[in-house]
This record gives sequence, C-alpha cells and structure tokens, in this order.
Amino acid sequence: MKLTKDWIVGFVDGEGCFHVSINQKKDLKNGFQVLPEFVIVQHKRDIKVLYAIKKFFGFGIVKKNHDDRWCYVVRKLEHLEKICDFFTKNPLKTIKNVNFIKFRKVINKIKRKDHLTVDGLVEIIDIVNSMNTQKREKLIELKKQLLCGEERGPGAKDKI
Amino acid sequence: MKLTKDWIVGFVDGEGCFHVSINQKKDLKNGFQVLPEFVIVQHKRDIKVLYAIKKFFGFGIVKKNHDDRWCYVVRKLEHLEKICDFFTKNPLKTIKNVNFIKFRKVINKIKRKDHLTVDGLVEIIDIVNSMNTQKREKLIELKKQLLCGEERGPGAKDKI
Repeated sequence: MKLTKDWIVGFVDGEGCFHVSINQKKDLKNGFQVLPEFVIVQHKRDIKVLYAIKKFFGFGIVKKNHDDRWCYVVRKLEHLEKICDFFTKNPLKTIKNVNFIKFRKVINKIKRKDHLTVDGLVEIIDIVNSMNTQKREKLIELKKQLLCGEERGPGAKDKI
Repeated sequence: MKLTKDWIVGFVDGEGCFHVSINQKKDLKNGFQVLPEFVIVQHKRDIKVLYAIKKFFGFGIVKKNHDDRWCYVVRKLEHLEKICDFFTKNPLKTIKNVNFIKFRKVINKIKRKDHLTVDGLVEIIDIVNSMNTQKREKLIELKKQLLCGEERGPGAKDKI
C-alpha cells in the first residue's frame, strides 16, 4: 500500500492524536516524567494501514491498544521531531493543527531539557493543560505540588 | 482552505460514512424508500473543513447534525454518482473501501430503478445488510415482509 503526504495529513486530521502524559515518578530527579506521543488507533481490520503508515515514516511501532484496537505509536524524541517537521511542512487542515502546534512546543522544550527544571515543567503543564484531551484537574494539582513543593507520597505514580 | 484529492481520501478513510437507510412508507408504490447518503460528521469547531469539502466537490450541504456536531451530506442521486466516480478513481486505503464498493452497487441499482421491484429491493437489503453499520435484525424483518407479503400497518414508518 502506497501512501502520499496528503493522504497522511487527511487521515491524521481524522484519526491522529498528539498526546502528552505527565507522570509522577519519585525515582526521577525532579519527580516527574513527561511522555509525549503521536498515536493513530484503528480497528484490527485496518492493521495494514497502520503498517503502511509506519513504512511511510520509517519509524514508530504498531502494537495492540485494547480489545480489537491496534495503534501506530511514535515515542522516541528524535522520531517525534521528525513527525513535527512533517506536520510543519504539511499542515493539518482541521483544528487539530492547534493541538499539534502546542505539542511541537512541548517537544522543543523537552529537546532543550526545559522539563528538568521546575519552571520548564510548569510551562509544559500549562501547555498540556490547554490541549483539549487532557485531564485538567490532575494537571492543576501537579502544578500546585510543583509550585508549592508539596510532599509526594512514595507510591505516587498518578498518570495524568 | 485548499484541499487535494489525496487529503480528501485520507480524511474520508478516517471520518467519512457511506450509509443506506431503508424506510417503510406505505404511500410509496412498493411500500419502501431507499435513502443512500454520504456523510462526514465533525465537531462544529471544524465547520470550515466541512465547507471546504463542499467547495471541493461542488455539491452537497453542510448542516447541523446533533448537539455540537455538524455534517457534510450528499443525498442527490446525480451527486452520489459523482462521489462514486471520485472514490473509484481515488480509492480509499482502509477497509472502508469494501463498504464503499457495496454502497456503489446500491447506487447503481437505484440508477437502474431496481429498487422499485421486490427482487431488486431484496438484493439491496442483502447488500445493506452486509455493510457493517446497519441494524441487521430490522433489515431481516423487512426482507421477510417483502418476500412473504406480510401486511404492513398504516403507521409503519420504521427507519432502519
């Protein structure tokens, strides 16, 4: 199956997701882990399309998501930078482009290691908070913890 | 907003729907109405994309669907034929193409007025029944009524 740039843009306008999760991890230096990912979820009957997308980009993995859903996922920073380059040169047409631009900001901040400082992490939380797929209450709570230096329990690993 | 053929194919692979509804209508000659439609539903924040798609094809309408959802809809037979021509020349990449091919068969049958005969209508019901978005039990019931000549109540207008 041969895919074109424009098909990829159209399909991602419909089915793609730019997601950033922030996890509390006490074993990490600043207690937080920032995990950006680009995901396309499909029913298993369309697994061939996911592999064709993987082939198109030349990176990422195809894996089971849940039940009969499979997904194409990109998580490595160097590959996410390439995803950002692609959607900068080939812009999304839907409002999803606004989310993508915020996602790209997060990627750039991670690249500059801003996420390893409290200020940088607070900025990232604010960006993620403005993306429309996030659980805001938990992010606000995390930000409060960061800014107030509130103690984090040893088992604190809430994924937000 | 300028859309390309490949973007349209990618977006429809994700978001498009080829749908055929069959209604019982006692005022029609054979008691049944076959209504095929091509639909793309989006959140109202992406209404501009729906208008761009309308402009791309040069027909169809954009209207409110429900709540904050809007849709681009094509229902006129001559326009649905053009939709079929487009997706024949520019094939969908996902398994949705299988549904499209069945949809095209229905359009061709309607064009030949097959839906006005019992045999033709039964064939259409069988095709629609094999499309994966339909309510099978109701279609099987309709087919039984058609083949057995079961009496239809005066208020029978079940949309399937």
